[in-house]
Amino acid sequence: MTIHIGLIGTGRIGRLHAANLARHVPGAHLAAVVDVNRASAEQAAREFNVPLVFENIQDLISRPEIDAVVICSSTDTHAPFIIAAARAGKHIFCEKPIALNLPSIDTALQAVAAHGVKLMVGFNRRYHSNFKKIRELIAAGKIGRPYLVRITSHDSKPPPIEYVKVSGGIFLDMTIHDFDMARYLLGDEVTELYATGNVLVDPAIGAAGDVDTAVVVMRYVNGAICTIENSRQAVYGYDQRVEVLGSEGALSSSNEYPDSVTHHARDGVHSSPTYFGFTDLYADTYIAEMTAFVDSIEKNTEPPVTGKDGRVPLVMGLAATRSLREHRPVRLDEIQ
Amino acid sequence: MTIHIGLIGTGRIGRLHAANLARHVPGAHLAAVVDVNRASAEQAAREFNVPLVFENIQDLISRPEIDAVVICSSTDTHAPFIIAAARAGKHIFCEKPIALNLPSIDTALQAVAAHGVKLMVGFNRRYHSNFKKIRELIAAGKIGRPYLVRITSHDSKPPPIEYVKVSGGIFLDMTIHDFDMARYLLGDEVTELYATGNVLVDPAIGAAGDVDTAVVVMRYVNGAICTIENSRQAVYGYDQRVEVLGSEGALSSSNEYPDSVTHHARDGVHSSPTYFGFTDLYADTYIAEMTAFVDSIEKNTEPPVTGKDGRVPLVMGLAATRSLREHRPVRLDEIQ
Amino acid sequence: MTIHIGLIGTGRIGRLHAANLARHVPGAHLAAVVDVNRASAEQAAREFNVPLVFENIQDLISRPEIDAVVICSSTDTHAPFIIAAARAGKHIFCEKPIALNLPSIDTALQAVAAHGVKLMVGFNRRYHSNFKKIRELIAAGKIGRPYLVRITSHDSKPPPIEYVKVSGGIFLDMTIHDFDMARYLLGDEVTELYATGNVLVDPAIGAAGDVDTAVVVMRYVNGAICTIENSRQAVYGYDQRVEVLGSEGALSSSNEYPDSVTHHARDGVHSSPTYFGFTDLYADTYIAEMTAFVDSIEKNTEPPVTGKDGRVPLVMGLAATRSLREHRPVRLDEIQ
Amino acid sequence: MTIHIGLIGTGRIGRLHAANLARHVPGAHLAAVVDVNRASAEQAAREFNVPLVFENIQDLISRPEIDAVVICSSTDTHAPFIIAAARAGKHIFCEKPIALNLPSIDTALQAVAAHGVKLMVGFNRRYHSNFKKIRELIAAGKIGRPYLVRITSHDSKPPPIEYVKVSGGIFLDMTIHDFDMARYLLGDEVTELYATGNVLVDPAIGAAGDVDTAVVVMRYVNGAICTIENSRQAVYGYDQRVEVLGSEGALSSSNEYPDSVTHHARDGVHSSPTYFGFTDLYADTYIAEMTAFVDSIEKNTEPPVTGKDGRVPLVMGLAATRSLREHRPVRLDEIQ
Repeated sequence: MTIHIGLIGTGRIGRLHAANLARHVPGAHLAAVVDVNRASAEQAAREFNVPLVFENIQDLISRPEIDAVVICSSTDTHAPFIIAAARAGKHIFCEKPIALNLPSIDTALQAVAAHGVKLMVGFNRRYHSNFKKIRELIAAGKIGRPYLVRITSHDSKPPPIEYVKVSGGIFLDMTIHDFDMARYLLGDEVTELYATGNVLVDPAIGAAGDVDTAVVVMRYVNGAICTIENSRQAVYGYDQRVEVLGSEGALSSSNEYPDSVTHHARDGVHSSPTYFGFTDLYADTYIAEMTAFVDSIEKNTEPPVTGKDGRVPLVMGLAATRSLREHRPVRLDEIQ
Repeated sequence: MTIHIGLIGTGRIGRLHAANLARHVPGAHLAAVVDVNRASAEQAAREFNVPLVFENIQDLISRPEIDAVVICSSTDTHAPFIIAAARAGKHIFCEKPIALNLPSIDTALQAVAAHGVKLMVGFNRRYHSNFKKIRELIAAGKIGRPYLVRITSHDSKPPPIEYVKVSGGIFLDMTIHDFDMARYLLGDEVTELYATGNVLVDPAIGAAGDVDTAVVVMRYVNGAICTIENSRQAVYGYDQRVEVLGSEGALSSSNEYPDSVTHHARDGVHSSPTYFGFTDLYADTYIAEMTAFVDSIEKNTEPPVTGKDGRVPLVMGLAATRSLREHRPVRLDEIQ
Repeated sequence: MTIHIGLIGTGRIGRLHAANLARHVPGAHLAAVVDVNRASAEQAAREFNVPLVFENIQDLISRPEIDAVVICSSTDTHAPFIIAAARAGKHIFCEKPIALNLPSIDTALQAVAAHGVKLMVGFNRRYHSNFKKIRELIAAGKIGRPYLVRITSHDSKPPPIEYVKVSGGIFLDMTIHDFDMARYLLGDEVTELYATGNVLVDPAIGAAGDVDTAVVVMRYVNGAICTIENSRQAVYGYDQRVEVLGSEGALSSSNEYPDSVTHHARDGVHSSPTYFGFTDLYADTYIAEMTAFVDSIEKNTEPPVTGKDGRVPLVMGLAATRSLREHRPVRLDEIQ
Repeated sequence: MTIHIGLIGTGRIGRLHAANLARHVPGAHLAAVVDVNRASAEQAAREFNVPLVFENIQDLISRPEIDAVVICSSTDTHAPFIIAAARAGKHIFCEKPIALNLPSIDTALQAVAAHGVKLMVGFNRRYHSNFKKIRELIAAGKIGRPYLVRITSHDSKPPPIEYVKVSGGIFLDMTIHDFDMARYLLGDEVTELYATGNVLVDPAIGAAGDVDTAVVVMRYVNGAICTIENSRQAVYGYDQRVEVLGSEGALSSSNEYPDSVTHHARDGVHSSPTYFGFTDLYADTYIAEMTAFVDSIEKNTEPPVTGKDGRVPLVMGLAATRSLREHRPVRLDEIQ
């Protein structure tokens, strides 16, 4: 059984998914690409041997042979495209976030539910070998009851300031991945959080109304406490680590390196920096998440990252934004 | 020049200092030991070849040949003994904390100032090779402007519940070392903090009115943000690490291990656990701090850990206690 | 410019090269597969979208549109296929070893030279990021003059005994990769070696006239000394490391691991075993070497692993075999 | 019970043992120091509170209250002092090597046997936590049957050329520690070895008739193969590591570092160099061996490093010297 997929949005992340669908995802056939920029869509079609090219999502979802869509267009289109695809009976993979406000998300999730299609959200980090293993070891009880979770998540350099201005703020743009990670690792929900932050990397980020350095402290239902640390700039590379302390031990992951060569010199021991870009570090995770999406269609099972998994991190991001603004801890049930 | 020292309190930490003064601190002569428990004092005197034994601090400080005292008795005696020693013109090394309330500390510091004696407070961790090196590298500008500081500080197992009841709470008893570390690493002052905590290790600690798991988030004058993570129990050993992210790079320390043997087996790679007790990990720091104290007397310089360094962490501990109780961020200038 | 390639031999390594040629090597088109087992060839053709399938190499090399062949058939066919392909004017990539005797190699190399085609030999390990980096750092003078080289190279488990019997012995089958590595790392030639070995893993290997544990000590022209350690069995995984000590420092590489998660438990620190199979560890190297081969055709440059590079390790293997048998150091110029 | 000890030779290693005997070895009393240089002996006596000072060993061993001697004088005096002390009924700790020729050793061992005193030889590295643990894990069967042993042992810089000239050559001076380690780790005897070496560090060492870079390959009775690598110069520090591969796994040790701080910078990851001097790395081993010596006297047990343990490494050193000179493998039973 082959799943025929139409990919919407042939920008950076769209082309990455296209390459994986064309080469690395068993059972998937990349049947169409869509982009308002037709030249971009056509170039992707050539590169990945895609038979159909459209400028308009309606042309895609009206094709009966299309089983599923992969939405990689700009964030503001996610919710309307989900609704359109759901109405057309297409299964949906959507890049995160579904939207930057809850009403849009809720409307989209209602459409998905009403039309009985599958929706998977692109929290690809869940598929990294480190985080997957830590979740599995926790679930297997290897460290007993969790006490403390720590997520270190730094970009190597800040995004362009024009991007920052429309990003929704650090908590909705960057921390949202870590909010998902916090839930994923423990399989538990957060009830309250406190966020603090500052402008230390670039005053222009502050002028845009955002912070570039942030710490969020969260409490889980089960009582464990999670800390997320974010910086928009870690000059030594993309820094992505977690630690979990529990009653019976601890788990920690370290970054990965392009080689394991050590240079022993008079002045000390030296080795290569870690990766600087997210596509280097997370390349395999994009293949794995898309494989899981196709697999859930083939086997008619629930996708492993659900609509709820797309909604809750946004609630957390909104709570963190309010906490920072109001300078107090905020309960998640304050966010409607 | 030999500094003649009288040591007060021959319990665990007192005997540790006595052994170092007798064997490892150049220029020091352990001339007397004092303990209300005379048998304990006499046993220490035999073990470390100490000529004088007293039950009473007055007998010690009335001896003109005594240059300095090392106060290792119970916390409630620290302030009165500092005052008595200062009046007698003796230099003073005092174990942390000076007291659990600010008025006692301030009275003691006034006595020290009035009598022109030296006072050094026992924040021994400053002398660990890792933390010392990180402070030095930061001060040398190796990582540029500091963004984020993280202090991981877990005991291997909780203290006896009777101790917990009189400890003043986790922030005054355990975190106080980390508050000192936070100031030491950056050479900057904290302006505000938010503390959260929970009872996850042992319900008896909760019944005693304390928490056993805590996270404190703090802001420095220079804008950097520091996170302290504390657990009363880390079953894999005494976990003492720091990380500092700055504009030009990051510094991190790892725990130390009794050997560096790796066992490569079918099921993975295995190595020894870290140390479980603080005296294993910090043995050298006790020698180094006492050497620094004796050195400051010999050279008539200011001790490297001052009375202010003893006072500020208590302010931070009181602020954290209030933050936890009042469930809000607390500025340090709220604490009088 | 597209290089049209015919692949000969669709066994394990052949299919690996086929997958890479079909998906990962820019500028290559896998135009034909050849196998005496037609069913195997046809299956590979289906899997990798290969238009032409043959049972016979003559059918392949008679096709004018074929630019190059990739020889992955059994060792005894390597030399005759090289000769046939050279005569047909096809460029050649050949799996190691070219042959197990020098006359066959020399005849093949003469045919290559006579017909002016390119020949590259499949010493893929040269393309591993660790070994490549070490060679580059040595060539850049980072460790000054080399003193000592050490190559650790253990299989995770012995090959089938039937394979051992026809393998030519451990030095021609397994150490040959390390002989190439020894030359590659330093860019220097070996003049003499001493080999010792024993049967410790499996008596059946001894019964087949081979050893399963071996050490080879070699001297380079420049005076440095190299040690190769081989075991047919390392139960903890495929162990592939090098170290080089020089006048100005040292370089070392460690194994790689499928994740970087550390489990801190009461009884110590635990992490995942390294990879067990060579295709896991060296997956990227097969892509890189084939890319380099195609690139050398496109740009008409000398392939980076030459016929001489295929010949010398066999000389070393024969010298090691003689050293072991005659229980004495053997000069390479003793081998004709 | 206190063991009264006279220490002979107050040079560098003698003063190190004196400090340990005076401060760190329970049950030992350093009662006398002897040195032909009286000023040196007197200075040591003052520093370590030693009551008796002699210029002549006879004055020491004639004192009935002396239980044992610690011989730290020059190598040529070891055997005669052992004989003199044995005749006087004193237990003996002797620095390695006992002598540089077998007849001297054998005469000394005969005297020890004839007079029923204890003799322990100063192979201190046996007491390093890494090597001790590896031996214990091997003895406990954790890696099954040993296949391959590797000992890396490099000095940070060559000794003065005057020392090299009288050292007996690298195998008797430097490798002798590694020969002992080879026996210690496996608890097995070597039957044959092959040594090769070169002058790469300093031509003056070659002019003195020695090599500065060496590899020794050895076979054990049980069939395992051991490789020792030696360089007189490792500019990045004193490099002391071992690896053992066995049928059920492997053990390896790494060097130790003065701190565990990692600096993550744009150009890579940096940390401190290892120790440069043997007294830094092996400080604890000197205390442990002396404690074991005193303990064996107190408990009347055999010392853990026997006269045979002092003799066999010399046989190995002589065999290696011959192997290098004669350019062939040498059996240990060739050395008489």
